[in-house]
Amino acid sequence: MKLKVYVDRMSQPSRAVIIFCKMNGIDFEEIKVDLAKRQQLSPEFKEINPMRQVPAIVDGRFKLFESHAILRYIAGVFPGVADHWYPSDIFKRAKIDSVLDWHHSNLRRGAVTYIINSTLAPVLGLQLNPQAAAEGEKMLSASLGKIESIWLKGTGRFLLGSSQPSIADLSLVCELMQLEIVDEQDKNRILDPYKKVQQWIEDTKHATKPHFEEVHVVLFKVKEKLQSQRSRRTAFPSKL
Amino acid sequence: MKLKVYVDRMSQPSRAVIIFCKMNGIDFEEIKVDLAKRQQLSPEFKEINPMRQVPAIVDGRFKLFESHAILRYIAGVFPGVADHWYPSDIFKRAKIDSVLDWHHSNLRRGAVTYIINSTLAPVLGLQLNPQAAAEGEKMLSASLGKIESIWLKGTGRFLLGSSQPSIADLSLVCELMQLEIVDEQDKNRILDPYKKVQQWIEDTKHATKPHFEEVHVVLFKVKEKLQSQRSRRTAFPSKL
Repeated sequence: MKLKVYVDRMSQPSRAVIIFCKMNGIDFEEIKVDLAKRQQLSPEFKEINPMRQVPAIVDGRFKLFESHAILRYIAGVFPGVADHWYPSDIFKRAKIDSVLDWHHSNLRRGAVTYIINSTLAPVLGLQLNPQAAAEGEKMLSASLGKIESIWLKGTGRFLLGSSQPSIADLSLVCELMQLEIVDEQDKNRILDPYKKVQQWIEDTKHATKPHFEEVHVVLFKVKEKLQSQRSRRTAFPSKL
Repeated sequence: MKLKVYVDRMSQPSRAVIIFCKMNGIDFEEIKVDLAKRQQLSPEFKEINPMRQVPAIVDGRFKLFESHAILRYIAGVFPGVADHWYPSDIFKRAKIDSVLDWHHSNLRRGAVTYIINSTLAPVLGLQLNPQAAAEGEKMLSASLGKIESIWLKGTGRFLLGSSQPSIADLSLVCELMQLEIVDEQDKNRILDPYKKVQQWIEDTKHATKPHFEEVHVVLFKVKEKLQSQRSRRTAFPSKL
């Protein structure tokens, strides 16, 4: 029976799981749970994931949620997954676990807080909140500084000095891709000080092509839409 | 060479790591990093953990931080650790990973936000913030509701219906023990609706005795101190 992957490509951890499956030739069925239509709250999806969040998977009789747990599980049960994604060496694996655990309360929290409060709030029926956006940006920038100075300090192209990407690279870069939808000037202001981070994003995209770009198409469409809204607002401020 | 464990027993993930080592008869050296004295910011500790947070470990030449990664690592490299803590069965292990990953952005975030803004802020040189405390409490209560209805719904005494505790039980219960230092009435108000959660806390304490109580002694001392401050404030409000 095919692995079932419940996702919305607008969700960054969903994208990480889809790209991971595609990169490793896993035969899976992608089932869209449309967050804009609040399908994650449906009784049917509650049976899949009682936390009502994407991504979630069903593998035969086994159900699982939380993207990092899913990535670890897939790396463990599907024999075709290359070792560099989640090495069997316990020391390398522990270091990757450390990055993944750190991600939740640092990069992810900063990025999500910034992006929602600076850009996405109206789409979610909320008000923009400049103070919360500023707090999110502070946490995001601090996290980028840590990635640059601690995990990208070696000569390897990927986190922890590796020459090939792990599930941590994929998870964290998918998080940062969410910055595509904020105002271009703001995105550049935030990323500009971190040259190694910028190169690492490019290297991760390159190492996971063509899947990375293909899975992000939906995000780029939203980016275009928001950009055109912003341009109209600048051109005809009195009309809006 | 002994495992070195850098901790402050006032930090809930630090306590989880110490209790885990003691429960499993691991020969380790506990090195205190006094957060009240800001020792985590010292140049010496930066060499141990560049993120400047406890807990962190040094095992021979290997350094690691993030408590969940540390618990997984210790379970993997020390041969005396009983399987129930972090089962080798990939399905059981994935479910525990799912709980641990969920913890960061839900129970932990809610509990820390509530406790700092309702109680601990003055100790940290910050102002109490009732609005942030209310937001934290909301997230904390929602998380307790999820634990009660999803992970404690079976007949087992521990998370995921298990008959013995895992590293997830230990991590989450140590988090909740931090509620000991808030006002007793507030603690009761928050925990009262969740009878299974209360029983699970007691069961986890019991399954990890005598180490659980012993490692929490420092927290109970802070609890007494704060309680006596609160009593004085009630008795002589005009003096404070």
